[in-house]
Amino acid sequence: MKRFYIEQKKVKQSVLIALLFVFALNLSCKKKNDMPSENLDEKASIVEKQDILRIEPLNWWVGFKDSTLQLLVHHPNISEWIPEISYQGISIEKTHHADSPNYLFIDLNISKETKAGKFNIIFKKENEADLVYTYELKPREKSAENYIGFDSSDAIYLITPDRFANGNPDNDIVESLKEKTIDRTNNYARHGGDIEGIIKHLDYVEDLGFTAIWSCPLQTNDMPQSSYHGYAITDYYEIDPRYGTLDDYKLLASKMSKKGMKLIMDQVANHCGLEHWWIKDLPFKDWINYQDNYEKNKNDWDGNKSITTNHKRTTNQDMYASKIDKENMSVGWFVSAMPDLNQRNPFMAKYTIQNSIWWIETVGLGGIRQDTYPYPDKDFMSDWAGAIMNEYPNFSIVGEEWSYNPLLIGYWQRGAKNKDGYDSNLKSPMDFAMQRAIVEALNETESWDKGLIKIYEGLANDFHYVTPKDIMIFLDNHDMSRIFTQLNGDIINTKMALSYLLMLPRIPQIYYGTEILMNDFEKPGDHGLVRTDFPGGWETDTTNAFTGTGLTEVQKEMQLYLKKLLNYRKSSRAIHEGKTVHFSPENGIYVLCRIIENETVVHILNKNEQPIDLDLSRFKEIDLQGKLLKNIISGDTLIWHDNIKLDTRGSMVLTTKI
Amino acid sequence: MKRFYIEQKKVKQSVLIALLFVFALNLSCKKKNDMPSENLDEKASIVEKQDILRIEPLNWWVGFKDSTLQLLVHHPNISEWIPEISYQGISIEKTHHADSPNYLFIDLNISKETKAGKFNIIFKKENEADLVYTYELKPREKSAENYIGFDSSDAIYLITPDRFANGNPDNDIVESLKEKTIDRTNNYARHGGDIEGIIKHLDYVEDLGFTAIWSCPLQTNDMPQSSYHGYAITDYYEIDPRYGTLDDYKLLASKMSKKGMKLIMDQVANHCGLEHWWIKDLPFKDWINYQDNYEKNKNDWDGNKSITTNHKRTTNQDMYASKIDKENMSVGWFVSAMPDLNQRNPFMAKYTIQNSIWWIETVGLGGIRQDTYPYPDKDFMSDWAGAIMNEYPNFSIVGEEWSYNPLLIGYWQRGAKNKDGYDSNLKSPMDFAMQRAIVEALNETESWDKGLIKIYEGLANDFHYVTPKDIMIFLDNHDMSRIFTQLNGDIINTKMALSYLLMLPRIPQIYYGTEILMNDFEKPGDHGLVRTDFPGGWETDTTNAFTGTGLTEVQKEMQLYLKKLLNYRKSSRAIHEGKTVHFSPENGIYVLCRIIENETVVHILNKNEQPIDLDLSRFKEIDLQGKLLKNIISGDTLIWHDNIKLDTRGSMVLTTKI
Repeated sequence: MKRFYIEQKKVKQSVLIALLFVFALNLSCKKKNDMPSENLDEKASIVEKQDILRIEPLNWWVGFKDSTLQLLVHHPNISEWIPEISYQGISIEKTHHADSPNYLFIDLNISKETKAGKFNIIFKKENEADLVYTYELKPREKSAENYIGFDSSDAIYLITPDRFANGNPDNDIVESLKEKTIDRTNNYARHGGDIEGIIKHLDYVEDLGFTAIWSCPLQTNDMPQSSYHGYAITDYYEIDPRYGTLDDYKLLASKMSKKGMKLIMDQVANHCGLEHWWIKDLPFKDWINYQDNYEKNKNDWDGNKSITTNHKRTTNQDMYASKIDKENMSVGWFVSAMPDLNQRNPFMAKYTIQNSIWWIETVGLGGIRQDTYPYPDKDFMSDWAGAIMNEYPNFSIVGEEWSYNPLLIGYWQRGAKNKDGYDSNLKSPMDFAMQRAIVEALNETESWDKGLIKIYEGLANDFHYVTPKDIMIFLDNHDMSRIFTQLNGDIINTKMALSYLLMLPRIPQIYYGTEILMNDFEKPGDHGLVRTDFPGGWETDTTNAFTGTGLTEVQKEMQLYLKKLLNYRKSSRAIHEGKTVHFSPENGIYVLCRIIENETVVHILNKNEQPIDLDLSRFKEIDLQGKLLKNIISGDTLIWHDNIKLDTRGSMVLTTKI
Repeated sequence: MKRFYIEQKKVKQSVLIALLFVFALNLSCKKKNDMPSENLDEKASIVEKQDILRIEPLNWWVGFKDSTLQLLVHHPNISEWIPEISYQGISIEKTHHADSPNYLFIDLNISKETKAGKFNIIFKKENEADLVYTYELKPREKSAENYIGFDSSDAIYLITPDRFANGNPDNDIVESLKEKTIDRTNNYARHGGDIEGIIKHLDYVEDLGFTAIWSCPLQTNDMPQSSYHGYAITDYYEIDPRYGTLDDYKLLASKMSKKGMKLIMDQVANHCGLEHWWIKDLPFKDWINYQDNYEKNKNDWDGNKSITTNHKRTTNQDMYASKIDKENMSVGWFVSAMPDLNQRNPFMAKYTIQNSIWWIETVGLGGIRQDTYPYPDKDFMSDWAGAIMNEYPNFSIVGEEWSYNPLLIGYWQRGAKNKDGYDSNLKSPMDFAMQRAIVEALNETESWDKGLIKIYEGLANDFHYVTPKDIMIFLDNHDMSRIFTQLNGDIINTKMALSYLLMLPRIPQIYYGTEILMNDFEKPGDHGLVRTDFPGGWETDTTNAFTGTGLTEVQKEMQLYLKKLLNYRKSSRAIHEGKTVHFSPENGIYVLCRIIENETVVHILNKNEQPIDLDLSRFKEIDLQGKLLKNIISGDTLIWHDNIKLDTRGSMVLTTKI
């Protein structure tokens, strides 16, 4: 299977090379058309052929609300050919030529009555034998409503797939790809982690108490260097063979589904990798932004000739932003190795929307994480999320808006009453504001405006959000210093941060390795270091965090601590959907409660090193007097009465659910 | 006049003392009622009497939209008396007893047809001679629509009246008041400034280019110490005699009105001074908050027995705030010398609303500044502002919400689409967020997230506000370190801050003395020091900032600089109401433009010490190519073309209005 794939890949690559240098040469058109079109209606009798280099989406489905489908056809001089389809319910509405003769965009209408099946698209040209491409419309495996996205009852484990576990060493090096080396001593090289590695350790993730996995992008990044991070996609319809195959990805999804876990796919609409297959033959003059600039310089492209974005994300909202700043923000390249896709080109827009739907439907996703959310054209992003939510009403999308400003976070959430009328259709923004507040709250010495007041007031901002519990919260991720490093190696603070995170009316996300105090002290914030290998993911590892072999006591304790928290949270309706009541910090103690019917969870953050009695008379309104509560970490019980003795700094999580 | 006032005051005080210690003794009831009630309708014939100790409001008007009026009557055992009024159009709707027998609240209805005039309120009691109080309903001097509040076309000069100018040394010490000393060497003592001082120097303020004056409270603060600041009011219907008389205040207002200037009154709804006259005989058991606590301890009141607010202002919005925190925020005392008024008591609520209207109508105010806006009951505050705006649709109120969080600033502005449905009815919140951003922008060294980006992104938050141009902006005020101190004595930065302030789509406020670089370096932020005497305000001053005598060259230059800016702003429609376009900071330069029809104002903030050419090609969209512009400070002109040479750090303000 593996070998076959590589060969197939090689063939594809040869074709591409041929295409680039011998445009005039039509490689396929001489082929004989074996199937007369009058037979097409008889599904059983069609002869499958793939005379065309590439048609995307790779397949489609019957039964979507949106009856349109736009096929991107890429083939030498395909613009000179006229496509025909004869299949009950399918009609070609329009065929569009691109600026390059090697593309054709075909608008299909798939009527509600259309049955799943295969059919041939026949491309005709005078004096030439037909080109045939067999396309498939699949039946949908489950109803639209059953694509259930992640929500506040979930806890998400974020994985950098190259660095988590190497389940299949055979796919570490793929000869057909540009980055062929594997070097675990180099933090910016490939290390060999893959989908099979995740599958093998799914029980570990589940046992920890996570209910969802977000893996950084798994699509092919055929870049000459630093391809490990995944955000420079060079083929939107292919799993990077170093991570495995589409079947591996589907297997991961189905195994997770059986466990009741959700698979979240990381997608990138803003930019592709500079080595994306279409870069060498761009369909339109405006397929990518600053395309002229790129075209002029591509033969001696050094990365400095692109025009990169100004990163002025506030221009998306700013009523006063100059046109030039707005434009540059949106159309500038994120980095010079990642061409900025032009979503204002309607073919690009449709392509991206269909690609997302294709993955949801093919894999049965439990959510999408969309990269660099405020960078693409924002009207397109609304259309994109809207199109997905229209097809999958219970789905979830989380978008990365790296902003510490709650105004911007709120702006991006669907249903926000924005003055400019914008509705993002995005269920879940990310809460960078609270992330920073948590770190500051724990690192700072208490005063009227420092320390715990930061999270108390930060959480108070929830009044502004449409649905606070749909916002994703985290302590760190693949792009920032690890939480243990941010908290200066303070284990108690790290525990406090984690317990608070998991009590919030939010969707919590935790980065792999947090449970064993992975860190980047050596070079704080260094991306390669942040994404260090998870010990035990490689056969030769002497330390194995999956089994506990070689872990320090402190690491094991942290693993257990997180496991207890997550497993409590897993079935805690109070945390998933209960009301929140918190008490302003006093004397270095901050109390937050989550309450639903018979379950009350009390979370106490205490910054006092010395023993202190917490007088409970202030908390009358949560109505716990005389009740029995259990400490979910120690298992100890206590009666809520007069006061609680807090021995030392740390967090305490008490529940009435004994 | 002066002498008479003091004597009158003494009489009042004696009466009060009598009242407190000889409750049973009715001082007035023996007086003979000279006027039979059947004569009341004949206005000319009524005999005016004031048998009652106190009725508030002191008078009222005909012609308000709200036809109700509630009189607070304070007099020994007045609850045993029954009031009667016989005047066309006026009816007593209800009479309310309070908890103290010495109060009566009378609800009047004043029908639309009621004519202005005086009438007697006759209090009757069996076997006692009537008590008579002549009350006046005045005609309104101008229509409700003609009370025009301040707006973004104004520039406000903030004055601490005790510290600006001593126009009448005769009123420096008022023997009837508790703080009798005057000591200019003590920053927390009285210094003698007064209303006459402001009147005398009105031309100075006008010449500088200001169009409005906000003076800190002028109502009587009969407190034993630190009465100079004005926020511990002990009589809501009286001008502190050390500042002058009501007539002085009215004279100030009318002189300002003739100059087209607006007088803004500082009012305090949240708290009074501990020496307020009613504290010794509180009408209701819940007239002030934590009243029990105060009553129990008032004989050995040391200020520590009150329960002060937790200052957790976020509880006003926070969906998760505990009841105890919300309650304590709202009902806690601001400081121990200032009892927290209970606006949930409907009589207190009505009292406060009527008091505000009384001042607007009596003086002809051009606006109100309301102290500590988020501290009183927030529903009341909405009612209060709503009642005023209902009577005066073009009026302006600015509320002090000391928050650096734009979410909270936005929440308090009228028309905000708050999730909880709250509408404050407040036209103008204060922009503490931008205030801090300006200081940081100038003090910080430039980087991607430091320096000018702070104001660029800060201003971008305007997308959230209902009407950004109605928000008040300032560099400092009487409660914070002076801007020159905040900017570490950097004169260029101070100029940059001022020019930026005056270009913003906001209502700018500048604290007196900023124009001569007044500072508090000696003890930064010290309130007494911040509120230093304005040189020249006292006859003995050797330096006189009004005339320029003794000012340093640098001070004179700053005065002139501000004068040029303000006077340009005064008639600049582009700044008052033009559109705003700004360009993200690049190379330490930040360009903001205000544009309307034929007027474009370009504001350039440049942080480069060394000469630098500003390439103008980036600013094409403001369409100035080839146009003549004038530098409003230097008077130099230039043609907008290719680039502008910036010689050194500083701001440049260019206009097309030559």
